[in-house]
Amino acid sequence: MSKFAKTPKPPYYAVIFTTVKSEDQEGYAEMNAQMFALAQAQKGYLGIESAKGEIGISVTYWETQEDIAAWKNHAEHQIAQAKGYEKWYQAFATRVCLVERDNIFERE
Amino acid sequence: MSKFAKTPKPPYYAVIFTTVKSEDQEGYAEMNAQMFALAQAQKGYLGIESAKGEIGISVTYWETQEDIAAWKNHAEHQIAQAKGYEKWYQAFATRVCLVERDNIFERE
Repeated sequence: MSKFAKTPKPPYYAVIFTTVKSEDQEGYAEMNAQMFALAQAQKGYLGIESAKGEIGISVTYWETQEDIAAWKNHAEHQIAQAKGYEKWYQAFATRVCLVERDNIFERE
Repeated sequence: MSKFAKTPKPPYYAVIFTTVKSEDQEGYAEMNAQMFALAQAQKGYLGIESAKGEIGISVTYWETQEDIAAWKNHAEHQIAQAKGYEKWYQAFATRVCLVERDNIFERE
């Protein structure tokens, strides 16, 4: 099975979320798991790709800008965002992008 | 110092490159270091953010689509791409994106 998000033919949207964690990670893992599950249930959600190193990178894919805005404004997600800002992240960057072209290769 | 790419005010471009490695990684580390250095010397290069887990994600940022095309077609980079395709990657995805909005937060 593919480890990549199953995205359609472009155009579609990506949100690139890069993070540096703070020292206080109390409650983070549970909230992250909840948000991961909740995001998948949203209209227009297409998939996620994540990796962690010195920084964390999570890319979520969406059908439209409106879907991204609706997820950003989701009540439970707003609580998670506030906690991230106040507590869990030393730094973060969110970039909303229109995916114009893609090229996906998977060996047989 | 920030661990994030120092990107300008949008719009600018991002290339999201996600990978699953193959078993044969001979020569990869040297080539990757060379390409990392060479990319930085290219016109329009703005920065990179990378993380590795079950998949690897590297996002490079660029001023324009033309800069991305020129880097894709760079002779040494073409050799690296061919090796990646033939040998180092089980799978990869390249997504070329227009960054329309961003929000970057770094705690003092």
